[in-house]
Amino acid sequence: MTQSHMGPLMVCLTLGLVIPVSAASATDAPAASAKRMELRIQALSQFGANPEGGVSRVAYSEADIAGREYIKGLMREAGLRVRVDTAGNIIGRREGRDSGLPAILFGSHIDSVPGGGNYDGDVGVVGAIEVAQLLHDHKLQTRHPLEVVSFTDEEGGLVGSLAMTGRLKSAALDVVSHSGKTIRDGIRAVGGDPDRLDLAQRKPGELKAFIELHIEQGAFLDEDAIAIGVVEGIVGIRWWEVVVEGVANHAGTTPMNRRRDALLSAAELALAVNRVATTIPGRHVTTVGRIRAEPGAPNVIPGRVVMSLEIRDLASENIQKVFDAIATEASRIAAARQTPIRLQEVDIASAPAPTHERMRQIIAAAAKDLGLSYRLMPSGAGHDAQDMTHIAPTGMIFVPSALGISHSPKEYTSPEDMANGANVLLRTVLAIDGGALE
Amino acid sequence: MTQSHMGPLMVCLTLGLVIPVSAASATDAPAASAKRMELRIQALSQFGANPEGGVSRVAYSEADIAGREYIKGLMREAGLRVRVDTAGNIIGRREGRDSGLPAILFGSHIDSVPGGGNYDGDVGVVGAIEVAQLLHDHKLQTRHPLEVVSFTDEEGGLVGSLAMTGRLKSAALDVVSHSGKTIRDGIRAVGGDPDRLDLAQRKPGELKAFIELHIEQGAFLDEDAIAIGVVEGIVGIRWWEVVVEGVANHAGTTPMNRRRDALLSAAELALAVNRVATTIPGRHVTTVGRIRAEPGAPNVIPGRVVMSLEIRDLASENIQKVFDAIATEASRIAAARQTPIRLQEVDIASAPAPTHERMRQIIAAAAKDLGLSYRLMPSGAGHDAQDMTHIAPTGMIFVPSALGISHSPKEYTSPEDMANGANVLLRTVLAIDGGALE
Repeated sequence: MTQSHMGPLMVCLTLGLVIPVSAASATDAPAASAKRMELRIQALSQFGANPEGGVSRVAYSEADIAGREYIKGLMREAGLRVRVDTAGNIIGRREGRDSGLPAILFGSHIDSVPGGGNYDGDVGVVGAIEVAQLLHDHKLQTRHPLEVVSFTDEEGGLVGSLAMTGRLKSAALDVVSHSGKTIRDGIRAVGGDPDRLDLAQRKPGELKAFIELHIEQGAFLDEDAIAIGVVEGIVGIRWWEVVVEGVANHAGTTPMNRRRDALLSAAELALAVNRVATTIPGRHVTTVGRIRAEPGAPNVIPGRVVMSLEIRDLASENIQKVFDAIATEASRIAAARQTPIRLQEVDIASAPAPTHERMRQIIAAAAKDLGLSYRLMPSGAGHDAQDMTHIAPTGMIFVPSALGISHSPKEYTSPEDMANGANVLLRTVLAIDGGALE
Repeated sequence: MTQSHMGPLMVCLTLGLVIPVSAASATDAPAASAKRMELRIQALSQFGANPEGGVSRVAYSEADIAGREYIKGLMREAGLRVRVDTAGNIIGRREGRDSGLPAILFGSHIDSVPGGGNYDGDVGVVGAIEVAQLLHDHKLQTRHPLEVVSFTDEEGGLVGSLAMTGRLKSAALDVVSHSGKTIRDGIRAVGGDPDRLDLAQRKPGELKAFIELHIEQGAFLDEDAIAIGVVEGIVGIRWWEVVVEGVANHAGTTPMNRRRDALLSAAELALAVNRVATTIPGRHVTTVGRIRAEPGAPNVIPGRVVMSLEIRDLASENIQKVFDAIATEASRIAAARQTPIRLQEVDIASAPAPTHERMRQIIAAAAKDLGLSYRLMPSGAGHDAQDMTHIAPTGMIFVPSALGISHSPKEYTSPEDMANGANVLLRTVLAIDGGALE
């Protein structure tokens, strides 16, 4: 499907917007079309298609720009009035019966990681458009204005949602993105204005709510055959650089009992990190993903090892508790092996972002009404929703990722699961519109 | 000290060679001059001096070439007839009473590692020249011809001694050395002829014996205040690449109990390697000096870890025994953590090179006669002597390295220790000359 034949469709369907005939309610909401969503996911996956069957549609690339035009076309087809804010976020708006009410915003993103798949972000955008399409097709009007969003450059650092919440640091604009462009030039390339990001900002209270539909990217739902994840929040992340100081020495002339081998201490600590994480109750995760021994020659005893330590959890206090236990282990190992260990925090921490409690209840109720199984769960990955928690009651809906695979061409979510997600999203929007948040 | 004022000295002293007046014997050997050796070490350290107080005199460099000229001057001063063989080895010869006898060869090397110290190799060359100088000064003649050698490019792979023993592979000539020159061009630059390396070869039986005096490069002698190490042999080295296969996954969305983290298995194996090495009786050493996790991002669970494993010992059977025990541990860890582990041997193995048993006895007797403490010990580092074991009865004498430091500007061996080494070397040469090997 190309962008060119979206134009005529868009024009004729936009006309529908002006003649709503009935008020929308959650109880008799129309059903999402699994087939239409699947076709749109397939069509979207042509923009930046990679040989492995996924997409490499990094933000600001030609593929991203073409994909964005396709999305604008779908928005117009669903009767939405499309604009691009100064941060490059695509926003499709549908007026409500009461123009004085704040808008209900929902959506996700369509940019991908390099070598990504066809569902991460895309399901949320296609699902949000499906909701608008259903309301449009069934001529149902809400009280509140509705806005569907496709955020700019989620994978490169939540750029669009940070800008919308007034939290994008100006230094971030100079970062060179995967497209080869700086984020500043990228925002310009997708129709934004990096010099006027203030205009993209939405103030607290300006939005009634924000809801994001997204694939889980983990295996909890798929393994237990649960249809819907009600996201309790996006976990906080803290990251440390661990530096173990030993004594580099000749691997041939230094006997075993006279070594201060930094790698042995690092190995013991890596195992201790895992032991601490699996012993302390909770859903936190700890990861040592990077390790380097110096000087790094097979015939030299490592004099220094540098490795990463990442801890994620929904509760800041629990992250601290896990870290403290790890620090205690590090002190013990350092003393026992006479290899000082420093744990230096890297300033990329993101605080846990709990979703709005009432929003969770509304989403759970929507799933229940639809007869869908659901589970409360944290999101281990970052999402635009975490930024939106700062300015609006925020909820997040997960649908299953087959085998938990994500950021891979092997990513897969079935049409039925996507439609389930869109149905829950629609009922959530209508419930909020009906006063469920009041 | 510069090379230019060596010339006149050399000429006048060479004259001394022709008028030996008495036969040399081990019992009344003259004593080495600690002061002269120290001055010569200091003078040699000017060639390629680095700011930290050591030398960066890599083979074939300008500093190496200048240092070699200085050594040739010292050899001539000691009454030796100097030639450079086609491998670039500097050989200073002193005729014996019986020209039909094979020569006794002794020496070491003067090239250094980048950022090296002033004693590694140098003590052996200066010590060998000291022996020749003493015989010359005291007009003592041996039965056997004596040859003092300074081998070419020891640090870059035992080039000179491999050539002398007919074991230098032609492919090695194309290797680019630290000097920036290929070994082929380097050999040419120091006056050799890489196309006629066959002429540098000495056949088994052609030499009566080879003896190398060298600093220990370890801390055994220094810590126990022992003057002389009688080297039992140069350890063999085997090296493996260890590949641990896990499953790379999202560090946020993959719970602890669903991970197959290659780094945890690698950490457990690194500790097991150490445990095996310290549990099995023996003097073997094992080292994991290099480690890399893939993809190597703090937010991705390592899907693969590649690390090095090196095992050294004087006995091949023991290296195999230690390796077998490590392989058993690797299998256990691989099965328990569902992370296959491959141990791929890298083809750089060097076989253990035991010294000649009678040579050890002669060296030990020389130390004893001198009232010096001594200890039998392996060499954990490689030396030219290991090549020479293939063609001649070989012995090796260690003197203490302060704190065991080597391959560093902080390398230090006291003048007294150097003189002790030269005295043992002289008595060893004289004992062999007197028939001790028969």
